[in-house]
Amino acid sequence: MKVEIIAIGTEILLGDIINSNAQYLAKQLAMLGLDVYNQQVVGDNEERILGAFDEAFKRSDIVITTGGLGPTKDDMTKEVVAKYFKKKLIPHDESIKNIKDYFKSTGRVMPENNFKQGMFPQGSIVVKNDNGTAPGVIIEENNKIMIIMPGPPNEMKPMFKESIEPYLKNKTNTTLISKVVKIIGLGESLVAEKVQDLIDKQTNPTIAPYAKEGEVTLRISAKAEDEESALSLIKPIIEEISKRLGNNIYTIGEDSIEEVVSKILIDKNLTISTAESCTGGMIASRLVSYPGISEVFLEGAVTYSNEAKHNRIHVKQETLDNYGAVSYETAKEMAEGIAKTSGTDVSIVTTGIAGPGGGTEEKPIGLVYIGMYINGEVTVQKYIFKGNRNKVRNQATIMALDMVRRGLLKSDI
Amino acid sequence: MKVEIIAIGTEILLGDIINSNAQYLAKQLAMLGLDVYNQQVVGDNEERILGAFDEAFKRSDIVITTGGLGPTKDDMTKEVVAKYFKKKLIPHDESIKNIKDYFKSTGRVMPENNFKQGMFPQGSIVVKNDNGTAPGVIIEENNKIMIIMPGPPNEMKPMFKESIEPYLKNKTNTTLISKVVKIIGLGESLVAEKVQDLIDKQTNPTIAPYAKEGEVTLRISAKAEDEESALSLIKPIIEEISKRLGNNIYTIGEDSIEEVVSKILIDKNLTISTAESCTGGMIASRLVSYPGISEVFLEGAVTYSNEAKHNRIHVKQETLDNYGAVSYETAKEMAEGIAKTSGTDVSIVTTGIAGPGGGTEEKPIGLVYIGMYINGEVTVQKYIFKGNRNKVRNQATIMALDMVRRGLLKSDI
Repeated sequence: MKVEIIAIGTEILLGDIINSNAQYLAKQLAMLGLDVYNQQVVGDNEERILGAFDEAFKRSDIVITTGGLGPTKDDMTKEVVAKYFKKKLIPHDESIKNIKDYFKSTGRVMPENNFKQGMFPQGSIVVKNDNGTAPGVIIEENNKIMIIMPGPPNEMKPMFKESIEPYLKNKTNTTLISKVVKIIGLGESLVAEKVQDLIDKQTNPTIAPYAKEGEVTLRISAKAEDEESALSLIKPIIEEISKRLGNNIYTIGEDSIEEVVSKILIDKNLTISTAESCTGGMIASRLVSYPGISEVFLEGAVTYSNEAKHNRIHVKQETLDNYGAVSYETAKEMAEGIAKTSGTDVSIVTTGIAGPGGGTEEKPIGLVYIGMYINGEVTVQKYIFKGNRNKVRNQATIMALDMVRRGLLKSDI
Repeated sequence: MKVEIIAIGTEILLGDIINSNAQYLAKQLAMLGLDVYNQQVVGDNEERILGAFDEAFKRSDIVITTGGLGPTKDDMTKEVVAKYFKKKLIPHDESIKNIKDYFKSTGRVMPENNFKQGMFPQGSIVVKNDNGTAPGVIIEENNKIMIIMPGPPNEMKPMFKESIEPYLKNKTNTTLISKVVKIIGLGESLVAEKVQDLIDKQTNPTIAPYAKEGEVTLRISAKAEDEESALSLIKPIIEEISKRLGNNIYTIGEDSIEEVVSKILIDKNLTISTAESCTGGMIASRLVSYPGISEVFLEGAVTYSNEAKHNRIHVKQETLDNYGAVSYETAKEMAEGIAKTSGTDVSIVTTGIAGPGGGTEEKPIGLVYIGMYINGEVTVQKYIFKGNRNKVRNQATIMALDMVRRGLLKSDI
């Protein structure tokens, strides 16, 4: 079945926001084995939206739209869809109640504007939105299927996963199963070199590498009649990749590095603390994004000033004076200091020069020391990362989390 | 003049890469005062590319394509364009020489494949590519203009700036200037209500609202003959909006909330510290993303456990026992505690229940207390945020930063 994605929103046509929804949906649909041959973007304009629908249904069986479900007048997707399918918009009591409840629970009264978010084309399926006030819609009519979702990615993505994906799975009878292998510590071209022969000779499953800041992902996708057959195609490939890449693979699955680290800590019943200078709270924040983290994460310190490094986590004044805040020695004392003052089994710390200022010949921008404490032993690693301030901070955060993973797997505590 | 952007490439349809070219071009074209009403994405397939061209020229005067100019067989944009305009492809000596030189300079011989990058539709304008082997093309025919650029952003963007933008400027004599007004503390529908009459009655400038987590942006865009005239159209609108929304506006311009807060702190020469529970380092991390922050940000504490709240920043044990970690009283003592132990003029703290577990009827998921200390005075605000764990944390972070902004503007220190 052919699916077409239409993003509706003047802000995309003006370049104010990037159409990340289309990429997300394209990827998800490909994994479902559905063909996407066309994408469109159109503004909040009735005539042009109708034109886009016409064009899309000429060549595709299913049209998925994102955007234009907000409470304001220029949000008109549902209105135009109703017109396209010649349906009336009627109120959906449950949705209106949900929207009212949503406002009530935030201590506000529902503005009159939001009422229209509870109106739907007659005969359509209303799709719940757990993260906002705009429900989605599915319309099945004359062998056409139209699926309407809200524009904000943090509403659209969970709606797709919870409601639209299961709906689409029901409509197709090939299954495409994907498994991802996630790698930290090897660059994209090095990973590609090590598995290029596998990539070249495979057509089912396919192997696709992608890189994002500090990480490389290999996605292995197999098409088959059912899940079991697809998995049995994938299994030997993953075994071969695992043999070649070893413990540079931090997970086979969707977990993030912070999830992997958190789970190992919880599993080993080890507590952790963080002390961050250049990363400024990023490591702590990523650990805290894992819901179960309170079992093992006791505290973090963002020791940005030298005073904080000295007062809070007992880095010696002479160490700071003699070696500087960005040094092997400071990283070492930070790791010991935060672990001992917080009483944790493990600690991870960073100190570095994220830029754009502050670099010298001896200590260039991108220089970061990452220190780790595991039950009395301290390890420090030195990195020079490339890129702007936030890229340096992101890479340092990822390498720090991965250093904990490797440290925990190696140690026998 | 209407311009349409067509991205050509199967990798976009599969979601392997994001269509960042379309966003870049959309923004650049808007700034040139050119209207973009439609964007398309199509794969490396002759029939579908021809279909996209047909569709595009029905509604637009200029079509800009990106992608499909590589040396491999599946790169076919020029071939399809030649077919569309019924032109032969002929070799362009200078381009072929450039491509050969390019390979020579990297110590390689030009592969036979790359020869096709030096072939162009007869009668077209060849556009130099200083960053790769695929030149661009401009074709003017029957009042249609087609502009063809390579897909890699690091080739496409400089080509646009150096050759295409000057070409397009010659074709138009209007300029479009945009200014944004950024708002925290009012929801999208409330903002819309307050300015709906302005939105409705304006055609030049136009006013477009959009929302992202915790923030609303109004973009005011004016078309005129030159920048000065456009700005003079925008000015009274911004004045009127400012009057209506008051200090809910945190900036008129592109600055983020953390940049605004950092600049006020630096300007007032006030130091700041943070203590975070549910936000877990997000506030510190956003402040640290501002390069000049080291002047005023001394330290942050991620006091996740009760012990950390007590030991590090002196929240009384009885407060934790009697009121709980997520309480007005704890937030108050956190704000005092971090400011006093770090010796800063200002502090901002959070304690809350981000979920998915841990909620009760009395203290539901999403409940966050934000405390602020400014020169001896403590303020605490209670919020109930909606959404999943990270949405709650993000909103708390934004409201916390905004609370500092409002506090600093109100206080006379």
